[in-house]
Amino acid sequence: MTATTQVFDVAHLGHIEMLTDKYDESLDFFTRVYGLVLSAEDETSAYLRAWDDYEFHSLKLTRAETTGVGHIGYRCVSPEALARRVEAIEASGYPVLGWTEGDLGHSRAFRFQDPFGHVFELYYDTNRFVPQTAAETPALKNTASAFTGAAPRRLDHLNLLAEDVSEFRRFMEVCLGSRVTEYIQLDNGRIGGCWFTVNNKTYDLACTEEHGGGMGRLHHVTYATDQREDILRAADIFLQNDVHIETGPHKHAIQGTFFLYVWEPAGNRVELANAGARLILAPDWEPVCWTEADRKKGQAWGLKTIESFHTHGTPPVKG
Amino acid sequence: MTATTQVFDVAHLGHIEMLTDKYDESLDFFTRVYGLVLSAEDETSAYLRAWDDYEFHSLKLTRAETTGVGHIGYRCVSPEALARRVEAIEASGYPVLGWTEGDLGHSRAFRFQDPFGHVFELYYDTNRFVPQTAAETPALKNTASAFTGAAPRRLDHLNLLAEDVSEFRRFMEVCLGSRVTEYIQLDNGRIGGCWFTVNNKTYDLACTEEHGGGMGRLHHVTYATDQREDILRAADIFLQNDVHIETGPHKHAIQGTFFLYVWEPAGNRVELANAGARLILAPDWEPVCWTEADRKKGQAWGLKTIESFHTHGTPPVKG
Amino acid sequence: MTATTQVFDVAHLGHIEMLTDKYDESLDFFTRVYGLVLSAEDETSAYLRAWDDYEFHSLKLTRAETTGVGHIGYRCVSPEALARRVEAIEASGYPVLGWTEGDLGHSRAFRFQDPFGHVFELYYDTNRFVPQTAAETPALKNTASAFTGAAPRRLDHLNLLAEDVSEFRRFMEVCLGSRVTEYIQLDNGRIGGCWFTVNNKTYDLACTEEHGGGMGRLHHVTYATDQREDILRAADIFLQNDVHIETGPHKHAIQGTFFLYVWEPAGNRVELANAGARLILAPDWEPVCWTEADRKKGQAWGLKTIESFHTHGTPPVKG
Amino acid sequence: MTATTQVFDVAHLGHIEMLTDKYDESLDFFTRVYGLVLSAEDETSAYLRAWDDYEFHSLKLTRAETTGVGHIGYRCVSPEALARRVEAIEASGYPVLGWTEGDLGHSRAFRFQDPFGHVFELYYDTNRFVPQTAAETPALKNTASAFTGAAPRRLDHLNLLAEDVSEFRRFMEVCLGSRVTEYIQLDNGRIGGCWFTVNNKTYDLACTEEHGGGMGRLHHVTYATDQREDILRAADIFLQNDVHIETGPHKHAIQGTFFLYVWEPAGNRVELANAGARLILAPDWEPVCWTEADRKKGQAWGLKTIESFHTHGTPPVKG
Repeated sequence: MTATTQVFDVAHLGHIEMLTDKYDESLDFFTRVYGLVLSAEDETSAYLRAWDDYEFHSLKLTRAETTGVGHIGYRCVSPEALARRVEAIEASGYPVLGWTEGDLGHSRAFRFQDPFGHVFELYYDTNRFVPQTAAETPALKNTASAFTGAAPRRLDHLNLLAEDVSEFRRFMEVCLGSRVTEYIQLDNGRIGGCWFTVNNKTYDLACTEEHGGGMGRLHHVTYATDQREDILRAADIFLQNDVHIETGPHKHAIQGTFFLYVWEPAGNRVELANAGARLILAPDWEPVCWTEADRKKGQAWGLKTIESFHTHGTPPVKG
Repeated sequence: MTATTQVFDVAHLGHIEMLTDKYDESLDFFTRVYGLVLSAEDETSAYLRAWDDYEFHSLKLTRAETTGVGHIGYRCVSPEALARRVEAIEASGYPVLGWTEGDLGHSRAFRFQDPFGHVFELYYDTNRFVPQTAAETPALKNTASAFTGAAPRRLDHLNLLAEDVSEFRRFMEVCLGSRVTEYIQLDNGRIGGCWFTVNNKTYDLACTEEHGGGMGRLHHVTYATDQREDILRAADIFLQNDVHIETGPHKHAIQGTFFLYVWEPAGNRVELANAGARLILAPDWEPVCWTEADRKKGQAWGLKTIESFHTHGTPPVKG
Repeated sequence: MTATTQVFDVAHLGHIEMLTDKYDESLDFFTRVYGLVLSAEDETSAYLRAWDDYEFHSLKLTRAETTGVGHIGYRCVSPEALARRVEAIEASGYPVLGWTEGDLGHSRAFRFQDPFGHVFELYYDTNRFVPQTAAETPALKNTASAFTGAAPRRLDHLNLLAEDVSEFRRFMEVCLGSRVTEYIQLDNGRIGGCWFTVNNKTYDLACTEEHGGGMGRLHHVTYATDQREDILRAADIFLQNDVHIETGPHKHAIQGTFFLYVWEPAGNRVELANAGARLILAPDWEPVCWTEADRKKGQAWGLKTIESFHTHGTPPVKG
Repeated sequence: MTATTQVFDVAHLGHIEMLTDKYDESLDFFTRVYGLVLSAEDETSAYLRAWDDYEFHSLKLTRAETTGVGHIGYRCVSPEALARRVEAIEASGYPVLGWTEGDLGHSRAFRFQDPFGHVFELYYDTNRFVPQTAAETPALKNTASAFTGAAPRRLDHLNLLAEDVSEFRRFMEVCLGSRVTEYIQLDNGRIGGCWFTVNNKTYDLACTEEHGGGMGRLHHVTYATDQREDILRAADIFLQNDVHIETGPHKHAIQGTFFLYVWEPAGNRVELANAGARLILAPDWEPVCWTEADRKKGQAWGLKTIESFHTHGTPPVKG
């Protein structure tokens, strides 16, 4: 990437549609245990957000026959930027699904697909969350809604699985103008994982290599917490509520985030993460390369990555 | 601001030159107590940085006959962006001081002045910090240097005093392309304070009204910590080292940052702050307006702002 | 105190009866906002506890025509120790109120009064909290009940007002066998405040000088949190719920506890506090003396004690 | 245990003598990395303490040809209590080593041995730490010495290995009057581990089953931190200083402490732990029993105990 060609058409990750075949249990988990707030619900979906997400929703939880990710929405910086992106995507040769009418959370959106079957959409016009009741109104006017005390403050990132991470990287650079901040270089010459951002966050999307033979699968969705202590407290809440804690709390070597991974009732992996004060401010940031030798040291403080982390994705791969 | 005119020529606040008439005591404070690391020292200045600042220095501490701010440096995203900014500044009518050769931390820089006498500079070519010894080398390759355990992770922002905040705002918008995220609207129609950013940080520079009759004065310089707990721990370190704690720890209503203000030995106010996971990601963020009625509630949890916070700036105003 | 006469008849502070003339609002505050759990409720009182209090209740909230403290209950180490205490109290000349039948939380208790009208009781047989439902059952068998996520883990201490702290001290030493860990020595020769403990906690009861002319008044009741971060988070919850935050969060110079004071709806002052790892383990601990000169430095990090802290107690003094 | 026979002769764990065959490296670790303070050093030993340990030392680090624990010192509540303990120990039949002259940290001490070869001593007269310089003097007079910013606040506990935990339990009850707060009940009828206390701390000594065939071995020594955050920060300091992090940070199921285990350069295991506000205040606390089925769930948040934790002790067992 050269700095003069920096692309700033895309502002930020906006929302993720998560599929669940245990809708009631999943909704109960996200609202009562994980701590998201319900904006609205229709026959097919619940629209959820963290207390400081400024848009109507950041998680659309949809009844389905399986699990995984329905689509991923990024918001553009302006209508003009959206038009530029659409033009670039149409020229790219990647599958275009065309315009949707939007939904409760935003107006029309342009949908397209990566080579592995994940559906993305770009939009500009959004439906900001507006508190309707005194209980929803924040005490401080610079936050989006009432402080709930729950750990998730805002949507942070998601992780997708792809058979060819290099190919996925080209897709992200061409279609979203994302830049790579860190990546895993395997000894066999392949890229094992890649972390992307469209802004000063250190990443808003990661892609790691699919080992299960699935297509279009989700590895996890993550919300950001204000403090690491929020994650330690959440761990006790998950424990008390019989949530499957997969791994953590611990600190990632890659990206340095403090993390905790759990599975929501339908099996989708959900993370809480805290990056501290870390941001990528350098316009000429050199992507950090992690070798297999680096990875053998485990996570930052030595925790070995557990096996399910390499194999579990949603939906499950049919045998 | 309309999103289509978003200016992204300036990447981030890079460094601040602070003047001290007690150089040895100030340097001892910043290295031994506050927790910055010395990159280099020459006859006139010490070049300091926090452990995760990627540039050679973020604080240039300079021997002087008084205190205050020497200059403020912002880094541009590219040579072309720097050229665009220079053109805009030269066309603006604000005082131009011209190109400098740079110093230990960066190459040539373009200097100019706000109407209140603060000196700014823009530069692109920078001198990245490169660990010279094993002790300086970070255990994790995605951090700039060895973790020291000290509270400050990176430079965060500074606060300048100006007699006319509205005029200062015009300067920031024209010269740096900064956008306003929050401001204070006084009952008398004036703007009491204004918070600016050039990126996704909620602010990198604030300007509040000068009440002491001084010109070109500094209110404070701030480094970001990873956690609020780092600030609580720092408070005990300041207490143990006889540092003047002016106010805090507490949470600001404006910007919602957790803060602690102390005075370094020469009298410059220095802050530690933690913003949690808060960022401004919305491309069409509406600046938050705080009225005098809002301000009467004190800080977020009710702390009354102490008198010296409204009057103390550096250098002191001569009687 | 010489170590050979150490009195260990009294195990710990057990519960406090708080009076409220706004019962419904107070109960809503303690359960929904402050985070206690309701064990039972009858016509006159609610029985409340924190999630790791092992007894049936640690706070008895009682409908009354005014506010303040109904009585203070301490649990003895054994029936024999209780008998020894009763004998000592009866011999002391302090007013004896005699045996009560106990209530929902414990069996018979011996009541007596300090010279300022506060009612104390000692008991041994207690009604341990036993989870009745799966939701109440803790995930870890070494905690008393389900982790709720709320800040208060267990009852910590209370603070009473008395016109003559020295006289109150004699009462505590004679009747409870408490020892003094810290105290305030006024320039006029009086004791301004005194901190007592019957075990390794640094204090379970404090007494400060009554300046309002009241009798038998309460200054505050405090629950302990696991971490300081629990208190910072609680501050945001109090802010969001329109609770009057009187002062804090900050760190006390005396006892070094991190604190936050709020007023429950009826006006009783309630604190959250965290002592970190501090305990009084030394059997020959010398009480720490704080002079007026010490006190002029404010709290640990310089916060000035606000005026209401010196004057507000419950019930209010009739004009 | 019935409450009427509660033994309060022993006040608290006072110090541990740790043996090292890499004295210089071990001393460098404890002072520069772990954060203890050196009180004194003679030809054979360094006397170390945490910043709020009130005695002259809590860790005596001794040059030796191997590693492990030299002796364990507990302080009694009074000379009379010490005499009572000596009498009980002499009557017990456990090996008596007799009186020592004490050392830099305390006066004469009575030494005796458990059946597995660990040497204990009891003493009363101690050498309190007295700050000698302004830099050592605490800013707050209720702490023992200057706040250093390091994680360890005070000595917390140690863990010893024994072939027969039930037999070790009898030793602790008879000789120290310790009570058991939690224990592991193996399916084979043996006790797998036992946690003891002489005061309101939840434990000051633990004993777990020796699986390596050694005698008199040490499992680990632990200091308490004020906050969990101190441990997370320490983890980064250990990482930066190439310290072997064995496991953690995580939360124990047993005792619920937040922990981090590292090996000092000579191989002795050292822990940092935080218990939050947890204390054992109930005089009739029923020991908590953990079955093998319980233990299979791993630590509190699911971390599996790593193999070395079951096998590594000091000194190493000769092959």
